[in-house]
Amino acid sequence: MTRYFTEEASVETVNERVGSEASPRLREVMTSLVSHLHAFAKETNLTQDEWDIAIDFLTRTGQICSEERQEFILLSDVLGFSMLVDAINNRRPEGATENTVFGPFHVANAPIRQMGDCISLDGKGELCRYIGKVTDLDGNPVENACIDVWSDNADSFYDVQQPDIQPKWNNRGRFFTGPDGAYQFVGIKPVSYPIPDDGPVGQMLGHMGRHPYRPAHMHFLVTADGFQKLVTHTFAGDDKYLESDAVFGVKKSLIAPFVRSDDEETVWRSDFDFVLVPVE
Amino acid sequence: MTRYFTEEASVETVNERVGSEASPRLREVMTSLVSHLHAFAKETNLTQDEWDIAIDFLTRTGQICSEERQEFILLSDVLGFSMLVDAINNRRPEGATENTVFGPFHVANAPIRQMGDCISLDGKGELCRYIGKVTDLDGNPVENACIDVWSDNADSFYDVQQPDIQPKWNNRGRFFTGPDGAYQFVGIKPVSYPIPDDGPVGQMLGHMGRHPYRPAHMHFLVTADGFQKLVTHTFAGDDKYLESDAVFGVKKSLIAPFVRSDDEETVWRSDFDFVLVPVE
Repeated sequence: MTRYFTEEASVETVNERVGSEASPRLREVMTSLVSHLHAFAKETNLTQDEWDIAIDFLTRTGQICSEERQEFILLSDVLGFSMLVDAINNRRPEGATENTVFGPFHVANAPIRQMGDCISLDGKGELCRYIGKVTDLDGNPVENACIDVWSDNADSFYDVQQPDIQPKWNNRGRFFTGPDGAYQFVGIKPVSYPIPDDGPVGQMLGHMGRHPYRPAHMHFLVTADGFQKLVTHTFAGDDKYLESDAVFGVKKSLIAPFVRSDDEETVWRSDFDFVLVPVE
Repeated sequence: MTRYFTEEASVETVNERVGSEASPRLREVMTSLVSHLHAFAKETNLTQDEWDIAIDFLTRTGQICSEERQEFILLSDVLGFSMLVDAINNRRPEGATENTVFGPFHVANAPIRQMGDCISLDGKGELCRYIGKVTDLDGNPVENACIDVWSDNADSFYDVQQPDIQPKWNNRGRFFTGPDGAYQFVGIKPVSYPIPDDGPVGQMLGHMGRHPYRPAHMHFLVTADGFQKLVTHTFAGDDKYLESDAVFGVKKSLIAPFVRSDDEETVWRSDFDFVLVPVE
């Protein structure tokens, strides 16, 4: 029992204090957190001034949060922590489509569209045909899979960010597969955009010499009975921020081809198949 | 160069992104932080639900902060992080008096008192004579040292917590040593008190099976020309929370004797010498 504080035994002093009323999981998580946080302070010889700056930063990060803004999720995102938690919780067998971060811009219950419909309602941007199929790990088509898609518009904003400017449900829709598992729809070729960078997290990125941009991507939420939920994006393979996504969302397997098509109106085409994993 | 995110190389992916504009120290601190935070998530296999709870906790912790309340410092305190940073920044040679946390209740420019004066102005509590000397590491007296002291009153509140109830400067004062380095003053024998436990940090302590109490202590800020600033407390050796201080402020060397005296009015006596370290 380490009763009194010493620098050497700081971790033990704190962790031995957890009471018998704590759940085993809370004990496990908190003792690990304390151990790693103390190791960080010791490794860096963190100064009192630096600690003061950190306290102020965390306070401002909390205080800028509102119904419309979640700066702590943003902080987690830019430190790669959100992607790590997503990865830990969605380990999949070889061949299955990988997850990436959900992001803050999904809206439930988007309109159900027919295969081939166009989801871009504001007439802005270059149109792209998204096409492919939903299969299981053996390549068998998955029938009645729901493909829920959303992207920004050509001005880099999601409809919910511009409710007075964009048509409702602009660049959103849900599509259900038939027996062949195939899907196709028309959207725009999405564009890169900055995460909100006018708060504490944006300031931190600036000090770290990092830009706030995300490479262009189309969001996909694919669900089907008997299969694990797939939350992912496909990324435009020619985007200049592909190797420096501010939130580290890019996985190599999610970079999709966006190629010029012969169609005069729908000038791009992006082929991508989704491979689902059965629930255990 | 680790361009795209993988669970295995998550730390490298994030840390290689730090730009050349970042200061060497910011790079050092942030890369260490990312490394330890990712190790924590991997070690615990942190779930998405747990991460959601953490985001909500951090947000509430920021939002309860105000001019009068600093919940993030409180969080740092109860995780032993404040004491660790204090220890790292105040390593002292054998024989020197140890530091402990400053706490939120110091007020600058307390009245200057004469040696032997009583700082308790509300007539509550049992009086105690604090007595000792200020010396250097060789035992030589330190002249003109300023001993700035403060404590709660017998109801467990500092004067600044009860501006409408307690007399201004209750249980506070500054004393200057003469050529013999000696000091003495009369205060109360302080009492234990809970840290603010009606917010997120208090809830967390409850879930962890920990109480919010600090053992009774007298605060000392001792300064003298040519010596390092000493921020410390002396703890009442008979306090029931001595081995479970909610903020881990107790060091073995700071536990002071509080013994019954023969004096009818000043019924306790606490002897403690302060040993200062010269500035380099």
